[in-house]
Order: sequence, then C-alpha cells, then structure tokens
Amino acid sequence: MAEPATDADDPRIVFTPSGRQAQVTKGASILDAARELGVDLDSVCGGRGICGRCQVTPVTGEFPKHGIVVTDASLSPFGEAEATYRQRRGLAPDRRLGCTARIRGDLVVDVPPESQLHRQVIRKRVEVADLTIDPVLRLHYVEVAPATLEDASGDLQRTLTALEQQWNLTDLSIDTATIADLQTALRSGGGAVTIAVRDGSAIVAVWPGYHEGIYGIAFDVGSTTIAGQLCDLVSGEVLAVAGRMNPQIRFGEDLMSRVSHVMLHPEGADDLTGVVRTALNALAAELAAEAGIEPTRIMEVTLVGNPIMHHLVYGFDVRPLGEAPFALATSASVETQASAIGLELHANARAYSPPCIAGHVGADTAAVILSEQPQRAEGVQLVVDVGTNAEIVLGDGVRLLAASSPTGPAFEGAQISSGQRAAPGAIERVRIDRETLEPRVRVIGSDIWSDDPAFADVPVSGICGSGIIEAVAELYLSGIVLPDGRFDPAAEERTDRVFEDGRTHAYRLTDDVSVTQNDVRAIQLAKAALYAGVRLLMDHLGVDTVDGIRLAGAFGSHIDVFHAMVLGLIPDCDLDHVTAAGNAAGAGAMIALLDGSSRETIERLVARVEKIETAVEPRFQEHFVEAMGFPHTTAAFPKLAAVVDLPSPTSRSQQRRRRTKEPT
Amino acid sequence: MAEPATDADDPRIVFTPSGRQAQVTKGASILDAARELGVDLDSVCGGRGICGRCQVTPVTGEFPKHGIVVTDASLSPFGEAEATYRQRRGLAPDRRLGCTARIRGDLVVDVPPESQLHRQVIRKRVEVADLTIDPVLRLHYVEVAPATLEDASGDLQRTLTALEQQWNLTDLSIDTATIADLQTALRSGGGAVTIAVRDGSAIVAVWPGYHEGIYGIAFDVGSTTIAGQLCDLVSGEVLAVAGRMNPQIRFGEDLMSRVSHVMLHPEGADDLTGVVRTALNALAAELAAEAGIEPTRIMEVTLVGNPIMHHLVYGFDVRPLGEAPFALATSASVETQASAIGLELHANARAYSPPCIAGHVGADTAAVILSEQPQRAEGVQLVVDVGTNAEIVLGDGVRLLAASSPTGPAFEGAQISSGQRAAPGAIERVRIDRETLEPRVRVIGSDIWSDDPAFADVPVSGICGSGIIEAVAELYLSGIVLPDGRFDPAAEERTDRVFEDGRTHAYRLTDDVSVTQNDVRAIQLAKAALYAGVRLLMDHLGVDTVDGIRLAGAFGSHIDVFHAMVLGLIPDCDLDHVTAAGNAAGAGAMIALLDGSSRETIERLVARVEKIETAVEPRFQEHFVEAMGFPHTTAAFPKLAAVVDLPSPTSRSQQRRRRTKEPT
Repeated sequence: MAEPATDADDPRIVFTPSGRQAQVTKGASILDAARELGVDLDSVCGGRGICGRCQVTPVTGEFPKHGIVVTDASLSPFGEAEATYRQRRGLAPDRRLGCTARIRGDLVVDVPPESQLHRQVIRKRVEVADLTIDPVLRLHYVEVAPATLEDASGDLQRTLTALEQQWNLTDLSIDTATIADLQTALRSGGGAVTIAVRDGSAIVAVWPGYHEGIYGIAFDVGSTTIAGQLCDLVSGEVLAVAGRMNPQIRFGEDLMSRVSHVMLHPEGADDLTGVVRTALNALAAELAAEAGIEPTRIMEVTLVGNPIMHHLVYGFDVRPLGEAPFALATSASVETQASAIGLELHANARAYSPPCIAGHVGADTAAVILSEQPQRAEGVQLVVDVGTNAEIVLGDGVRLLAASSPTGPAFEGAQISSGQRAAPGAIERVRIDRETLEPRVRVIGSDIWSDDPAFADVPVSGICGSGIIEAVAELYLSGIVLPDGRFDPAAEERTDRVFEDGRTHAYRLTDDVSVTQNDVRAIQLAKAALYAGVRLLMDHLGVDTVDGIRLAGAFGSHIDVFHAMVLGLIPDCDLDHVTAAGNAAGAGAMIALLDGSSRETIERLVARVEKIETAVEPRFQEHFVEAMGFPHTTAAFPKLAAVVDLPSPTSRSQQRRRRTKEPT
Repeated sequence: MAEPATDADDPRIVFTPSGRQAQVTKGASILDAARELGVDLDSVCGGRGICGRCQVTPVTGEFPKHGIVVTDASLSPFGEAEATYRQRRGLAPDRRLGCTARIRGDLVVDVPPESQLHRQVIRKRVEVADLTIDPVLRLHYVEVAPATLEDASGDLQRTLTALEQQWNLTDLSIDTATIADLQTALRSGGGAVTIAVRDGSAIVAVWPGYHEGIYGIAFDVGSTTIAGQLCDLVSGEVLAVAGRMNPQIRFGEDLMSRVSHVMLHPEGADDLTGVVRTALNALAAELAAEAGIEPTRIMEVTLVGNPIMHHLVYGFDVRPLGEAPFALATSASVETQASAIGLELHANARAYSPPCIAGHVGADTAAVILSEQPQRAEGVQLVVDVGTNAEIVLGDGVRLLAASSPTGPAFEGAQISSGQRAAPGAIERVRIDRETLEPRVRVIGSDIWSDDPAFADVPVSGICGSGIIEAVAELYLSGIVLPDGRFDPAAEERTDRVFEDGRTHAYRLTDDVSVTQNDVRAIQLAKAALYAGVRLLMDHLGVDTVDGIRLAGAFGSHIDVFHAMVLGLIPDCDLDHVTAAGNAAGAGAMIALLDGSSRETIERLVARVEKIETAVEPRFQEHFVEAMGFPHTTAAFPKLAAVVDLPSPTSRSQQRRRRTKEPT
C-alpha cells in the first residue's frame, strides 16, 4: 500500500498554543485530529461526549500566516451531545466538545490549559511553582462487548480487548479482588465501565458506567507535626489541607529519644509505627470529610519525612539509624500498597516516598530538592530546612550536596526557659533600643507592639523560635550579650532589665518572659550546628560565598532573615536573596503526588546528590567550635556589615583571657 | 585485548551425562567449570560448601574417546569443608562437593540427577510421570558487604549488589515488610542471609545465614472433596498428602445448587467462599503438621478446580456461571498473594491457578491436560474425568478439544436408591450369573465375594458409583434389563430377585440393597450425557473411533472398564488401551507447583483448546437421546463385541413400538 494520499481539498487544522497543524480528513473529530497530531488534549470517556475534558475553543477569522480563513461552517453545528453536556454540567458559549465537533473546513482550535492532559497549573494554596499534572492514575471509560455462548473469553479478557482497542493499553495486570469488582461493574453498568489504570500497567479500580473523582493525599510526616493535602488526581486541585501533632511525641520530643525508646523496648517500634499510622488515618479521614468524599476514594498517597519518620511509617527498624554507620533500610524510593502500612483508603491505594538521601537526610529533603531544584538556579544556592534537625542542600548548577545538622529543638522553642511552640501568645518579634536597652515585643496573633498601651490586654504565654532568635540577636547588637555569648556583667549597670540569675545573668523581656544565659547558650549550640553544616558543604563545593538562600519550613517562613544572619545561622548573603520557601517538603510531596514523572526526576537527582555525613567529618567539629560565638567581622560578613553596625569583634583568645579574669 | 589464550597444558574436563567438555584453568572448581560450560549443576549457597547441592562423582580411568587419563591426582584432595559436610549431613564415599573440589588435571565428572538444577524426578506417591523440578522460588545464599559511614547506600541496595555479583540477579523487587525482615536478618546473620527469589524477579523472603526448607501445596478443590499435597520446593519430594470433605456441601450437594444458593442469598457467595477458604487453611495446617513444619514456611500453592470452585475460592461472582452465556470472570490463569484469598501461610506466599477453559470446563481440566498431555500421544486420545460433571478432552496430536457434560451425581452414588459415596461397606463389584440370575457382590474394604460363607460377617451399607455401573451392566447382559433400560417384565418369572416396585420393577442385590427402575434411569441419563459429550467432540474432530482412553479421577480408578463400555459410558476401544489416569487434576496441580515453566506450557495449551459448549450444540441433544438405551451393535462396538456376547440389539423404533404395546 502506498502512503495515504493527501487530498488537496482536505481541510487544514491548526492547534494553539502548540502550533501543531496538518491536513486532516474531512469529517474527523477534533479529538481524532489532536490524537493524530500528538496534541495534548485530555479525554476520560474516550470520545463519547460524557466527560467534557476535551473542551476546545474554535477561533474564526482570517489567518494569513497559515493561509486559511475559518468560518462558522468550518465545524459541524453544535450538537445534541454538547447541548446535553451544557445543560448537565455547563459549557462556556465559545467552547465545543472536541470529540463530537467534526471538521468540515480549515480550522484554528485553541486547547485551553484545563483541557491539556499534561497541564501546567499555577498553585495558590500551597507554595508550589508551576506544576505539571500527570498523575500515575488515569481513568478510562470503555464499553465492553457482551459475553456470548460462542466466545469463552472471560469478562476480564473482553475488557482488556476493549482497553486495547479504545485506549491502546496493553499488558495490564489486575488483582483478584478487582476482577470481582469488574464482574459486578460490567453487569450493573450494562457493559460500560470506568477503569483506573496505574502507571499505564495495572488496573486498580473499576466502576460501572462513567465515573469521576479519584483523590490523593500528600503527607508530610514531621517529628512534631503531620500535615496532609488532599488533591483531586484529575484536576490537580487541592481540596483540603489539615495537620495534627505527631502522637509519637509521647515517646520522646526529639528523634533520638524515639530511637532510644525502640532500643530500650524491643516492641517499641510497633508502638511508634502504630500511633503514626493511626494519626495518618485520622488525618486522611479529616481531609476526606473536609473535601466531602469517602476515604475509600483516595487511591494514592505520597509520604515524606526524615529517615526516622520514614522508617517508622514503613515499619523498618530505626535502631540502625541511631548509631554509626547510620544504615538506611533502603536508600531507594519506596512504593507499596497503602494497606500494607495500615492506611485505610481505597483497597488498591498505593503509597510512594522519594528516596532517603542518607542516614540523617531523609525523603523530606528529597522532596525539598524536588520542589526547590537548587541545581537549576543561577550561582551557588543554599536551601535550609530547619526542624529538630536542619537539612541543608547546596547546589551550583552542576553539583548537589546535602547534609543534616543536629541543631536540636532550640529553634522550635524547646529547651528555652520560657520557650514554647509557635502559637498565639508566643513572642515572635523583639526589638531592643540600642541606647535605653528597653525592649519592644510582639506576639503571634496580634499586630500590637508592646510599647502601645493597648498591648496590656494582649496575653503573652512565652517565646517561640523566631522570637528567641530575634531576642538573642538584639541582645548581641545592643552589647548586652558579648560576642562569646556571655552576658556582659557591666550591662547590669546600664539597665535593670539585666539581673543576676544564679551564677549568671538574664534579661527581662516582659514581666514573665526572660532570656537567660542558658537560653543564649542553647541558641549558640543550635546555630553553630547549622552554620557548621553549611560551611562543611561549602568546603566540599569549594566556595566561600553563596548567591542565594532559601529557608524552607514553617521556621524558615517566620524567621527574620536579618536577625538570623546577625546570629550567624546562615552565611553572609544579600538579604534580598534570602527568601522563605514555605513548606518545601510538603510541596515536593504534592509534586510527587500529581506528577508521576517527577518521581523519576527526584530519584535521578537523589542519585546525584553528594551525601556529607557531618558525624564523620573532623572539619564539622572545627566549624562548630568556630561558629559558637558571634564573631562577625566586616571581612566575613561584608553584605551584612553593609546594612548594620556590627559590634566590634572579639577574638576567641581574648574571650578566653577575659573569662579567666572575670569570673561570673 | 586478544581472546584468552588456550594453554595446551590446561586440563580438560568432561561432564557426564551432558557430554559437555572444555579446557579449563587449572585450579578452578568443578562448580565454576560447570557454570562456564552451562552444565546443569545446582547450588544454593553459591559455592561455600554449605548446601551440598553441587555433589558430583569424579570418574577415574582411561577415556580414549576423549584422549585423556583421569587419576586421583586430577582433583584436589578431599578437603575440610567436604569432611565437615560429610560429618554433618552425609556424603557418599564416591562423591565430592563441586564447589570445593579443584581441577588439577584432566577430569571426567558425573553430575548425578539430584544435583541437576532442572532435574527429572520419577514420582511414586502421586501418579505424575517424569517431572522436571524447576519451581518459581529459588533460595540464594549471599554475603552482604557491611554498611559503612562513607557509603550511604541502604541495606537493601548492598544486598541487591551482592545478589547481582554473586548470583547475577538484577531488577529485583521487594515489599516493605520484606525490607524490614532483611534488616533484621542482616544483623542477626552477620551480613550473611538466604534470600528466596520468585520468578527471578522478586525477593519474597529473607532468613539470617544459610537457610533451607521452603514448601508448597498443590490443592485440588473438588465439589465434594478437597485434596492437598505438600511438597518440598527444593527437592520436589512429596512430604504429606491429605484430603477432606468440601464444607460447601451443606449449601448444596451439586454445583448448581450452590450457585442457586448465591442467587437466592446475595451474601451467600461470601459464605461459600469463606467455608472453602477455611477448609483450605485447615488442610494446609494438617499437611504442615504431618510434614513437621510451620504453615508459615509454605510459600507457594497451586489450586485447581472446576469453574465454580475456582471462582468461589478466588471470590469471583459465580452467578454468571449459572446461566447462559456462562461468562467466566477471567479465562486466563490467576496468580495472587495467598493472603488475598485468606490463606494463612507465609506472608508472601502466592497462589496460582491454570486457566479455566470455558464456563463449564475448569482449571481442573487444564491440569488434566497438563498431566496427561493427550496431544502428545499417538492417534486419537480421549481423557475423561468423571465427577458431578464429566470433563472430556479429545486430542489427535494436532488439535485439542474440551467440553463438560452434565452427568449429574449418579456416578458418585447420589440419586441412587441405595447409593452412597465410595467408602468401606459400599458394594463396588457386582456379577450376575447369566443362567441363574443370582448375584455375587463385593464391598469396599473386603476381598470376600458374597458367595463365600465368610461374607456373612461383612457389613454392607449401600452401593457406590462403580458398583451401580456394574450392577446395571450385569442386569443388561443377563437380559433382566432390556436395551431401552426397562426391566423385562418376563424376568420376574425367571428369578424372585426381580420384584414389583410400585408400577415398575427392581432387582434385589442383597437383603438391603436393590437396583430399581429409577436407578437404571439415573445411570442411563448420566451415561448418555457423558457419551453424548464424547461423541460431540468426536464429531468436531471428525473421527468415529478413538485409539486410547484415559479415565481420570477416583471414579476412573475404580470403575471396571468392561462394564463401563457395556453401558456405553465410553466409546468402543481396545480394552487394553483404556487405562486409569489416577488423580490427573491433582497431578497437574503438582506439576504446576514444582515446575514453573509448566505454567506457560498449560497456558499455551489452553489457548489452543477448542471449547465445545454442549449447551448450545443441537447435536448434543441428538446424541444424548440416541445414547439413552444400551443399543450396542457389533458394528458400533466391534472391539467390545470381540470379548463379550452382547444382547441382541433392539432398534429404537422397535423399542417404541414395544412400549406402546406393553405398558409398564
């Protein structure tokens, strides 16, 4: 056979925005033409005018560039199926259903973003950059030939034939329970069924007739809180967001105390795994209720977390993570039946986690890399996600390095005398007048500063992580706290806010909240750990400066960048180039949920990451000791020095001498 | 690089029975040489002298054909590992371990059958012909590199590397629970673990150190009885055999009454599925106890049964099988996690069933085809498996045809006035003197015929299927029953054993057991159904005679071939060529269990089978009516006529005339 002849009379169709065009057979549907040209036009019902996903906008007029004129006669008139669809579900006046509108003349057709199979969505509710919706699950409506006495092929085989003929899907697997569902659906649907296919390779659910509505949840399992976002897997829309405390907290606030619990109680791992799985189920139920769906319609979840959370959720032994060499159970991505980890969702729901990067750098960091993609940015980019541990990623467009630093929970308000979690009533902003040494504070949930008389009515319950960082930075900038972290004993004479506190001093911020010497020490230890980790990665990358810093996580969103840099939490950088990344781990989890191909991306990126183990690098200890004080010099922090007068630096040897001379 | 030079001094090794030979590097082990030459030599421990599966027998002497002389010096001396193995597990004097014995000179080595990876085993306990042991599960012992601080790869990744390096296994999948097991096993095994790999593609179990002993069960799920055979999946040995009643019987004796139960009680399917799964678990526990193992060591099961049993076990809806067009849920083979069908075995045990052939021809028939392979025999071969339905397979070396005939339960002793199942006390043999018309009988469990005075002490409880067939055949041969199946009223005058029974007659076999007119009618209906099915297949194949008949199942083992042919259950054939096949379905299940490659074979064979649906073939009804009587003619049954004087034939028209003349 020769190639099909191109008839000069055949109409020409131009698709926008793709620009694809060709001559097509007169009478073909727009959907047929789109498929033939490889234009990205969605369809669930397979061209039966039911799903409305193939909506297009025909454009009439003269198109000299393409040498064509499009009139209303270029398309078949608005038909019955379209009228029914418009009445039932709404259809804008300029829209047509691509599957029923037939081509009669030269045509220009615009495919709106929401009709694209791999569509870009601008997210609002969660801070995810433009995102491609390409979930691992797809719905396919098929009409299956009835069984006959002459043909002994089973319900499944006739359905597979229909899927191959109508959707070009082959080699599909199916489990026995879904075969039973298929039998029922075929009979109640009169041979018409909607089939959910996972990864183009497995039939995972069947419904009678035409069906819509499959959902997924992106879970971010933190040591302290667990957050979930429920999405429509077809539209990519976020339908519900919720969070709750991680109930493992009763086994220990920080990660290592939970690992210790398992070490001390051989059966303890089951407890820890059990409570977190219960919490995930409760959160899923809450999200489903908020979205007004049954939890059984949730067919896919992604889970990110640090290695210990990750291992506990999946039921892996965390004890190896508690001691060198910190061996992960698996350093690859994990995919499993959701039911295998106790999640009560759709029977065939699956759970996916991106890879843990190393024994201390988890799937949450992988998710941060996926959403931030630091290797794509210009120059040297630093991403820091501060929780109980700080996850640090450094990239320069070629290399990607990651490490975890044991900052401890001080940045979260723990181990601070008046510390508390970020919640209404917690001091989050602090300013100290350089002359009078009088403070001004502001608490979460109120816009009023404490120098406003109206502040008298604002309840103050404690100080949160960002508040204590500002407080310590302001104490240092005011000269109350010395560069080595000690309270200057002389300050007691400058203000009665500084008072003796046992063998040391403290600063009274409000009637009930003071900053003690121990508080300052706790912040010093935490910030030194973070900074040492960052420096270590910079050493490995061979750079002395970074061009941009992204602060991920809730802490990163609330922290004042200037004060963080004054304390030396982060290296010197143009303050304009230090930005909050929001819940980057959660965003990465959502990308992995909604864009199946992103899973390969992150797996490839993680394989590329150079893992730096802070625990075995002698330089980490050196950097840590070096970073304990606030010894900022104009030379070391030129960009910071340009915006603030830093107290005069004190060398460590001077500090030591002073300490021996002036016992506190 | 040039090809490795063949050193003329390198020794030559010859393997028997394969005949493979080559020059090998001096100092190589026999196992290495075998692998290099592709000789079929087994190993589980990977050449560490632990498993003893690579035993070989070196042969010394002159081998002029190969131009070599083999002396004791051709192999390294008997070593420590071999001595340890001999002491621990026994090693014959002429045997060496192929992995530790090293080649020093020209060598001839015999690989005994039990050391072959794909070994032929002659079965005794179950009637399976020579069988290749090549199970889907294999054990692999590996030594995994320890975790280090420098290498962030997980336990799983280091294990996968070891499996690739030591066993050349790649792209293995694993579930999360098994990853957790791997963590534990690696730690308690000091890095050495034994791994069960399924289909060369999935890690399904892990044990610390060197491990042996994985087991499987071949289940034959009949409407009446469920049988199981527990096998060692490495050796292929049958360790336990057991059976029990199918507890579904309380929902109905025959298949259709069970389907009716489901039709009448929408939840009834769950009951039927539940009780059969419970019975399978009880049987597995019984088999495991008999073999002295834990049920959790059972990692593979195969299940065969008719379509309704098959569907109920897998939880498929059986209602479509109860009415035309008798649509199967799936006409392909089924493979699933055993836990998905409620079996409490190893957590990763899987269940496999060969395909059902058609709505009435099940996976049991597929198993019969697998064990009997009628298409391989010479000439036209008929295989008949009689249960509540008769499964019929006909092949001629090129074509394979199958059908199911609704014989009903008469052949199993049901619907017979004094009928009972084949059990001690049931009459199974009957002879009637052609002159005196006096009977002689024998019962199951006794060798004494009833004309022996000692028979007085033998309890008689009823008559079983083979007994009633002999009784009816003998009544016919004695002229008591006419060719149309009626009792000859004149017989009453010839013997007082014939008596009036309501409006018909009966024959008194013993004091308590008689054969009634209804009994004869029931047997006529059953045998006509069977014969009509056979004839239908013969029509389709275009043949008038068969060259051999295999009678499968318990019924086929107990039935007397001569009497069966007299009644016309089976077509004319040399009696020598009619043989019992034993439990061919069970044998097929075992082949599928022990030889993974047989699954492809049976799937391919089933795809080839021409399915004949008796319900839609008008000729079936014609053959059925035709076959109701016992109208044997010398022309139709020449081979039978050669061994017995058949009563004079009566044409059906004569019968009809007689019936109108002589009302009963």
